[in-house]
Amino acid sequence: MQPKGKKIPVAVLGATGMVGQKFIELLQEHPWFEIVALAASERSEGQRYGQAVQWRMATPLLPSIAEMKLQSCTPHIAGDIAFSALDSSVAGEIESTFAKGGFIVISNSRNHRMHSDVPLLIPEVNPEHLELVHAQKYGSGMIITNPNCVVCGLVMALHPLAQRWGIDTVQVTTMQAVSGAGYPGVASFDIIDNVIPYIASEEEKVESEPLKILGSFQKTYIEPYQMVISAQCNRVPVMDGHMGCVSVKLKEKASPADIIDAWTTFQGLPQTLKLPSAPSFPLLYMDGLNHPQPKLHRLSEKGMSVSIGRLRPCPVLDWKFTLLSHNTIRGAAGCAILNAELITIMKPS
Amino acid sequence: MQPKGKKIPVAVLGATGMVGQKFIELLQEHPWFEIVALAASERSEGQRYGQAVQWRMATPLLPSIAEMKLQSCTPHIAGDIAFSALDSSVAGEIESTFAKGGFIVISNSRNHRMHSDVPLLIPEVNPEHLELVHAQKYGSGMIITNPNCVVCGLVMALHPLAQRWGIDTVQVTTMQAVSGAGYPGVASFDIIDNVIPYIASEEEKVESEPLKILGSFQKTYIEPYQMVISAQCNRVPVMDGHMGCVSVKLKEKASPADIIDAWTTFQGLPQTLKLPSAPSFPLLYMDGLNHPQPKLHRLSEKGMSVSIGRLRPCPVLDWKFTLLSHNTIRGAAGCAILNAELITIMKPS
Amino acid sequence: MQPKGKKIPVAVLGATGMVGQKFIELLQEHPWFEIVALAASERSEGQRYGQAVQWRMATPLLPSIAEMKLQSCTPHIAGDIAFSALDSSVAGEIESTFAKGGFIVISNSRNHRMHSDVPLLIPEVNPEHLELVHAQKYGSGMIITNPNCVVCGLVMALHPLAQRWGIDTVQVTTMQAVSGAGYPGVASFDIIDNVIPYIASEEEKVESEPLKILGSFQKTYIEPYQMVISAQCNRVPVMDGHMGCVSVKLKEKASPADIIDAWTTFQGLPQTLKLPSAPSFPLLYMDGLNHPQPKLHRLSEKGMSVSIGRLRPCPVLDWKFTLLSHNTIRGAAGCAILNAELITIMKPS
Amino acid sequence: MQPKGKKIPVAVLGATGMVGQKFIELLQEHPWFEIVALAASERSEGQRYGQAVQWRMATPLLPSIAEMKLQSCTPHIAGDIAFSALDSSVAGEIESTFAKGGFIVISNSRNHRMHSDVPLLIPEVNPEHLELVHAQKYGSGMIITNPNCVVCGLVMALHPLAQRWGIDTVQVTTMQAVSGAGYPGVASFDIIDNVIPYIASEEEKVESEPLKILGSFQKTYIEPYQMVISAQCNRVPVMDGHMGCVSVKLKEKASPADIIDAWTTFQGLPQTLKLPSAPSFPLLYMDGLNHPQPKLHRLSEKGMSVSIGRLRPCPVLDWKFTLLSHNTIRGAAGCAILNAELITIMKPS
Repeated sequence: MQPKGKKIPVAVLGATGMVGQKFIELLQEHPWFEIVALAASERSEGQRYGQAVQWRMATPLLPSIAEMKLQSCTPHIAGDIAFSALDSSVAGEIESTFAKGGFIVISNSRNHRMHSDVPLLIPEVNPEHLELVHAQKYGSGMIITNPNCVVCGLVMALHPLAQRWGIDTVQVTTMQAVSGAGYPGVASFDIIDNVIPYIASEEEKVESEPLKILGSFQKTYIEPYQMVISAQCNRVPVMDGHMGCVSVKLKEKASPADIIDAWTTFQGLPQTLKLPSAPSFPLLYMDGLNHPQPKLHRLSEKGMSVSIGRLRPCPVLDWKFTLLSHNTIRGAAGCAILNAELITIMKPS
Repeated sequence: MQPKGKKIPVAVLGATGMVGQKFIELLQEHPWFEIVALAASERSEGQRYGQAVQWRMATPLLPSIAEMKLQSCTPHIAGDIAFSALDSSVAGEIESTFAKGGFIVISNSRNHRMHSDVPLLIPEVNPEHLELVHAQKYGSGMIITNPNCVVCGLVMALHPLAQRWGIDTVQVTTMQAVSGAGYPGVASFDIIDNVIPYIASEEEKVESEPLKILGSFQKTYIEPYQMVISAQCNRVPVMDGHMGCVSVKLKEKASPADIIDAWTTFQGLPQTLKLPSAPSFPLLYMDGLNHPQPKLHRLSEKGMSVSIGRLRPCPVLDWKFTLLSHNTIRGAAGCAILNAELITIMKPS
Repeated sequence: MQPKGKKIPVAVLGATGMVGQKFIELLQEHPWFEIVALAASERSEGQRYGQAVQWRMATPLLPSIAEMKLQSCTPHIAGDIAFSALDSSVAGEIESTFAKGGFIVISNSRNHRMHSDVPLLIPEVNPEHLELVHAQKYGSGMIITNPNCVVCGLVMALHPLAQRWGIDTVQVTTMQAVSGAGYPGVASFDIIDNVIPYIASEEEKVESEPLKILGSFQKTYIEPYQMVISAQCNRVPVMDGHMGCVSVKLKEKASPADIIDAWTTFQGLPQTLKLPSAPSFPLLYMDGLNHPQPKLHRLSEKGMSVSIGRLRPCPVLDWKFTLLSHNTIRGAAGCAILNAELITIMKPS
Repeated sequence: MQPKGKKIPVAVLGATGMVGQKFIELLQEHPWFEIVALAASERSEGQRYGQAVQWRMATPLLPSIAEMKLQSCTPHIAGDIAFSALDSSVAGEIESTFAKGGFIVISNSRNHRMHSDVPLLIPEVNPEHLELVHAQKYGSGMIITNPNCVVCGLVMALHPLAQRWGIDTVQVTTMQAVSGAGYPGVASFDIIDNVIPYIASEEEKVESEPLKILGSFQKTYIEPYQMVISAQCNRVPVMDGHMGCVSVKLKEKASPADIIDAWTTFQGLPQTLKLPSAPSFPLLYMDGLNHPQPKLHRLSEKGMSVSIGRLRPCPVLDWKFTLLSHNTIRGAAGCAILNAELITIMKPS
């Protein structure tokens, strides 16, 4: 399935930052979307993007993008969809302005995530939450958000368990990559040969966002999922890929074979619709005794699959396992683009 | 308090390996002990130690030690105490032979740790377990062990809680340094820019050894402590210092202030006896929001203190916190030497 | 240009090691070659490859390859071309045996590199050296080698300079990735937070191999290129990508613009022939003040291009610059496969 | 030798930055000096130091220092000596003001280093340059500087060679630790699994400062040493310790044994005077094939010795070798404190 006719014009807000660069890296050869505007802070307005940006992606920047002039973040710029990689200090207001201006705002920022009328969307998990936008007051515009980078992979792994057996309790300790902190982000002084056992506001997000995402859509609001989550978040000297050590208590009895089956056979709406950024298998279970590992598996299915391994009984809760997802792709820009693909097909009517 | 007269002659078994080197680094200027014999595999018998060893400690090797000839691991070598840094593939039998030969064997190997008549000793935690050696059948010799590197720090942090309130449940996820795997240990290919979510046999040790250490001495055996532990163990790109993210459920209600007080005021027998390797404060509580960190705090009190931070409520169990201990000092050679110091003063009669 | 008809059957010798895995990763979807045999030490003979190997490549192993049975390294196995990733302790004899058995042996090992009748080949640099195989005594078989991992990139950067101006003197200091040492290779204990200023035999190779590669083909032998090279080789905590800081004295005067032009316009025979593994541009010059960098540029053109930057006057010799090449692709398996592609088209008659 | 009576009161300017913290770490238990004032930017004036600083040193901050109030950088603060760890954007003017105010300014900043009347001092190398201060116009005050972090170790290694044989040419490629960039300094995003082949202004300093330091004192100025230096500077993922791969051409013929002898027997004025921060042996030659290494040797003699290894013939110049020095100790705060100790004893009359 794919939209007819011309590519859909899109803008990237916050285009010079790390998430902005990742958006551009993933969008610059996208089959449905065409970048028509790049916006950043007023300071860099008018500069060529290639000049203003310190490009740090491994994929080279296309010359056509490098030539584009940076604009300021006002809804007068071109585009139907606005991908927001804005810093949370400014994202709230600018995104609202763009939505009021008629844009479909696909945001990676945290500002609107927990608003009652804003979908906190993972297309494989809760596509029905899209309907929530009818409660928004933006006219033809709207705001759709994707979850925190570590939440996305976690919830994707939990979702099939929640569907089949229900989840009562989750304990998760994360080991998160430095790219999650943006640029310059974590000082090398702080992380070489070190672990930092704290990431500002992260545990709060991990303990709250999943309840909304797994919640049930009730026409005008989301009834949060009933479970308890405890999170401990750490930064480790890894470039990309957030790991999580999870213990989970299910509401009903499950066998390990059934759990693995629930993961490996899982297919969501993006798989059915064959969205361009959808991985064939959103959840990969790895048999290797010491898998998954960030360096080996973070780019599975172009970074859009979540890798899971080491399922075994937990003496305290029921089961423990390890999961890995690519924080700037599946956990940020990639998930946002999948959100945009979903809405392109499923536009809430 | 200190032993009268001459220094006590000691041997180091497995002297060329990483733990062996750490023993020598810590012993070569020890006030009570004098290295009189170095033993390793037969292959290197007769070689000068300085020639046979690839010295990887940051403290330079004393010329007097470098000149010593390596001997084979038989109890004919000199010494009253034998520090064993032997690989577990050979440690079991050699240590028994040394004990039968009249040596006080202070072992860092796992082989005898869980034997019913062998003390699994942390001098600050369970010095009374020393009496267990009366059940041993080695004549004047005996075997004393210290726990696994990650267990030592964990149990030290749990002990004051167990004393005041009792512990019901423990969840711990570890992020362990590469030095814990010895040499060559973890391949750089595997750990640069990576996390390995598996360490062979580690979780089993973390889930069992604490029950013995916190258990109660019953004349001829140890009654294990009653609690449930679940462990997830990971290797991270850090040189030294094992981190643990812990959640704990206590048997009675405690306040955070009381818990921190229990830690910071904790003193054990080594502190009372002022043993040379005893830290003034075995448990340090750090207020810093993002403390403890391996690079900053692993060498606190010469690597013999456990650093704790981030005490906060756990939505699943009662409390969560982060702890750090130096794995090759507090968790291995340093703990073993403290064991030897304790037995020098407290020799079971 | 491409060979007609069916794919050419190839074998990989030393298939379980790191270079062997890289060969398989690059060959498993190759347009011209089809893996028909995998060979390793006798110890693993008969095992399924997928079981015998600890797959450490980021690209998943194809199930069809995983199912293949490992064979021993004798020329009775199938295949026209044998890619040798054998350890140098055994490569010499086995490769000769395969050549005698009629195989085109494409070797990454150092054993035959400096033999007078063996081409030390970089297809972009010295394709005419292929003719050297006529001096070999292997009947229809032959042995072709590619240079040491750090030499390949260095010589590619020097070649256009040698062509236009001649080279008198080269000083190079390398900073080499750990993957160059194979597996387990460099211990993490040795390289985390560290630099190792020594790589066995490396400086000797860097100071000798380029003279042969840049030498002139004289029907039955290679007249070595006349220049002096001094190398200092270091291992740094980087996964992939060898860096070199080069100073060079040319035989004639050149301008920086001309040197950059010589690099950026450089095209070799593989580019003319459009060989499948040939990069469009073998040499990329980067304007960025702090480029090239391993993490950003090692995979340029699938790891087959050499990245160069920071050309500036050298107060001692004439010019200095920094170069980067992917050591296991351009500097090993990728170069070997390009050699095989060249010989497929240019088979010495 | 040591000053009589009370400790000398000293101030630290730029006390909250990384070099400032290192000054305090090294001074807080210094036998001759007593910290009486801490100064920083006006923004933090009046705050307790312990509150204003993010202490990142491994040695704990003394409570007495933590309690001190931060002052602004004016010469009204207490102290006879002012250690300047100021950023070069402000150091020039503030240091002049302090000198005019009667302070002995011991600066680690680059601003005054190349001024004709300012000693660029390494006490082991050019203590006679101290006399240069007589040309200064600061009344009883004066400014003394120490060299760039990588220059200090390099010049110390070159000095005995210059004395015995004279030096004609130097090629040096550095691999520098991240702590040299201060805090936050190098982004982890840029350096994990990476090398950055550029450090702003560094090569210029390495190519110029040694000529002044090794120059001859001519009453009112320094006649620069005549030699040519070419430097290539890189940042590598190492915390502390700058490595240099050096090639050198001497003015007269030397044997390797003599060169090693020149290094190992070298003693400077600080050794003769037994200054508190002077290492017993400023230059250590290591026989290990792969030594020196940052992690193993950077803290030799409390970080004040330079470690050298791998002396061997250079095919281009005469000799090559590898050197290592601790960049924030020997190459910054430690050298500055040694300068202050020297001037305390040798006060130019």
